[in-house]
Amino acid sequence: MAHITIASTLPGITGLLESRLDTSEPIRDLTQFILRGPNTLTEGERELIATIVSSGNACVFCTNAHASAAARYGWTREEVDAIVHDPSTAPVSEKVRQLLLIARALQRSVQGVSSEMVEAARSAGATDVEIHDTVLITSLFCLYNRYVDGLASDYPATEDYYEKLADRLTTNGYTRNPSLFPPANGHSNDST
Amino acid sequence: MAHITIASTLPGITGLLESRLDTSEPIRDLTQFILRGPNTLTEGERELIATIVSSGNACVFCTNAHASAAARYGWTREEVDAIVHDPSTAPVSEKVRQLLLIARALQRSVQGVSSEMVEAARSAGATDVEIHDTVLITSLFCLYNRYVDGLASDYPATEDYYEKLADRLTTNGYTRNPSLFPPANGHSNDST
Repeated sequence: MAHITIASTLPGITGLLESRLDTSEPIRDLTQFILRGPNTLTEGERELIATIVSSGNACVFCTNAHASAAARYGWTREEVDAIVHDPSTAPVSEKVRQLLLIARALQRSVQGVSSEMVEAARSAGATDVEIHDTVLITSLFCLYNRYVDGLASDYPATEDYYEKLADRLTTNGYTRNPSLFPPANGHSNDST
Repeated sequence: MAHITIASTLPGITGLLESRLDTSEPIRDLTQFILRGPNTLTEGERELIATIVSSGNACVFCTNAHASAAARYGWTREEVDAIVHDPSTAPVSEKVRQLLLIARALQRSVQGVSSEMVEAARSAGATDVEIHDTVLITSLFCLYNRYVDGLASDYPATEDYYEKLADRLTTNGYTRNPSLFPPANGHSNDST
């Protein structure tokens, strides 16, 4: 049970975002831009960063949500789980591998990113913008993971929720679509 | 030296925000709302939360910036430092003390907020909104601290920068004021 009363019956981050439209609007805007906006990192590569951070932070809701989303972009779910478990042998480009190692180091420690890690990413072809965006996505998911678990927000009733959520995250993205959220007493379990 | 080339000569988070106006706009919007918007927690109490999180994360720039800002709201800088060091004996209300303990626990661990901590805050008079906002401010500064230190952004040239920054944060707030930022080759060291 969540630590506070949340004015939404939706689980996880979705319920939090729906219950506070004042704070969720900029959070959604940032997420939509950094995960779905124009970028030389693919949407799938950016979802992998979100997943490895959420997994490292043991945030069950965010890990399942973003692993399910990442698995729509060219990897199987088993491959996504393997990448998150050990990026050093992951089926990704050397550039993405180095960016994932930066993400994991920063998730673990605020001062965890060394010059050597950045140089390794750069040597593998990463641009300054890609390194910046990796750091910002990592930082954003350190926000999300704490927001979700710091309030002990509810898990979905069934595991297939995450697949429905992934449907939405890969088609609608992270922008709120008011038509998906019934206002008063409606209870929708497949919105994002 | 920063890990990447930052298109701004300003130090710390200021340079990062100025170098990427696309991502900084929602970050600034969220910060302005949650730290300066209407709230039953005072601006000073919210700055204390930002400070205790930044201090716990050992983010030197953010700790100095927000401790300097907090010290404009009714505490001396020495009191702010003492509060951050040990909120259990801090010169704040019992409610704020309990909220600071929640912030510190969440900064340290994504799953660090217990039901007992939340109940202690509620018993001391904290509302669900105040508990929510404490968790979100903590989460936001876990983003900021990683963004700043994950890119090894530059420190200001002199310590008095933080007092000038505090001037701005307590008058202008967190919204970008384009007039403060000279465009081309200007180098302003007192902007936020």
